[in-house]
Amino acid sequence: MARGRFISLEGGEGAGKSTQLAALAEALRGRGLTVIVTREPGGSPGAEAIRKLLLEGEETRWNARAEALLFAAARSDHIEKTIQPALDRGEWVLSDRFLDSSLAYQGEAGGLGIEAVRDLHRFGSLDFLPDRTLVLTLDESEGALRARARDGHLGDRIGSRPPSYHAAVDAGFRAMAEKEPERVKLIDASGTPETVTARLLYALGDLLP
Amino acid sequence: MARGRFISLEGGEGAGKSTQLAALAEALRGRGLTVIVTREPGGSPGAEAIRKLLLEGEETRWNARAEALLFAAARSDHIEKTIQPALDRGEWVLSDRFLDSSLAYQGEAGGLGIEAVRDLHRFGSLDFLPDRTLVLTLDESEGALRARARDGHLGDRIGSRPPSYHAAVDAGFRAMAEKEPERVKLIDASGTPETVTARLLYALGDLLP
Ligand SMILES: Nc1ncnc2c1ncn2[C@@H]1O[C@H](COP(=O)(O)OP(=O)(O)OP(=O)(O)O)[C@@H](O)[C@H]1O
Ligand SMILES: Nc1ncnc2c1ncn2[C@@H]1O[C@H](COP(=O)(O)OP(=O)(O)OP(=O)(O)O)[C@@H](O)[C@H]1O
Ligand SMILES: [Mg+2]
Ligand SMILES: [Mg+2]
Repeated sequence: MARGRFISLEGGEGAGKSTQLAALAEALRGRGLTVIVTREPGGSPGAEAIRKLLLEGEETRWNARAEALLFAAARSDHIEKTIQPALDRGEWVLSDRFLDSSLAYQGEAGGLGIEAVRDLHRFGSLDFLPDRTLVLTLDESEGALRARARDGHLGDRIGSRPPSYHAAVDAGFRAMAEKEPERVKLIDASGTPETVTARLLYALGDLLP
Repeated sequence: MARGRFISLEGGEGAGKSTQLAALAEALRGRGLTVIVTREPGGSPGAEAIRKLLLEGEETRWNARAEALLFAAARSDHIEKTIQPALDRGEWVLSDRFLDSSLAYQGEAGGLGIEAVRDLHRFGSLDFLPDRTLVLTLDESEGALRARARDGHLGDRIGSRPPSYHAAVDAGFRAMAEKEPERVKLIDASGTPETVTARLLYALGDLLP
């Protein structure tokens, strides 16, 4: 049986990742693929326990370095327990956030450096990478508007950081797309959900059976 | 005010770390020092939450790499929130286990490599080191006997690993003492508790006021 494909969806708060993940899964199932959806941080029992530690509590609960180590630990478990077994069964795996969020949030915006955070992934997960990473790009203020319209407020421990932080996150995602243009594609996330889904499917064209 | 001193106590299961930590703290207080005692994994609220994840659950709960990342995250928090503030107040800090346990257990016995685990500490804690590390060395079977006499069984998720694992832990501690002979001292842990405490105090002679 052919190995499945692993696709990560990335982007800032409110860009539409969760909305598009569901739509993309449906579209791929419509083409006869078996698809599982997962998310980071989390996606396996151990990683979900770490997620709780990461997203709850005070802003100062974890220093930036401890936070990056926790994300890398969660990701190692997520890959081992959830993603790799599904790929081995020939399934497609769609993840709501993955490595590139750590590179953009902790590496670029958090000031630890993209390479240092990537080194943690090399250690924890032997540099396991998605077959394709789709970054939903949206004017930061428009994403914040969407998320605020949804929640009445902006975000959890990380989502609630200031605009300058989120602008640096955006720069981090763009840096990844420049560095690994085959894997990481920037996708315009403006317009209707249906328009965005069509753009995502187009960017997966060469991977579809 | 002079910065305090940071001393870690290391050694295999049942070697007498916790017993000696208490005795050493008393002896140092008797010399007029302010002493706090702490432990790893743990020692701060965040690190104690990680400790729970590490020591509970199935042996297969975490792969070796995720486990090492969790230890490094906990240590980063422990240093930031507990150890460094106490040293800044001029206090002495005694820790029941610290970095060298990770190097011996995950690096050497777990097969990840001492240098790779040390790199995580460089990332997470900027290679913050104890002023002195005292490794209690005891015939492994004698340590196991002591611990079993105490508990009726041997250890938690990590303590219950096989003898070959614990022999490799011992080799890891010895490697650290060879690599950093100024910081890491091997201390014979056989004999009465009072004899062992006297050996520990002797090995701290040059640091005492
Ligand atoms: N194309 C779109 N146009 C308008 N609103 C949208 C669009 N896509 C999603 N939304 C709405 O914007 C809000 C944020 O979308 P979604 O929750 O999918 O974003 P997200 O990237 O997953 O956010 P977060 O980073 O907070 O998880 C939701 O209320 C959603 O219904
Ligand atoms: N010098 C000694 N001689 C005999 N028994 C001892 C001595 N020191 C400690 N013990 C006993 O051995 C047992 C293990 O000691 P202790 O709990 O201090 O070891 P430990 O290194 O902290 O173990 P663990 O790795 O399980 O935390 C205890 O029951 C303790 O009372
Ligand atoms: Mg979402
Ligand atoms: Mg003990």
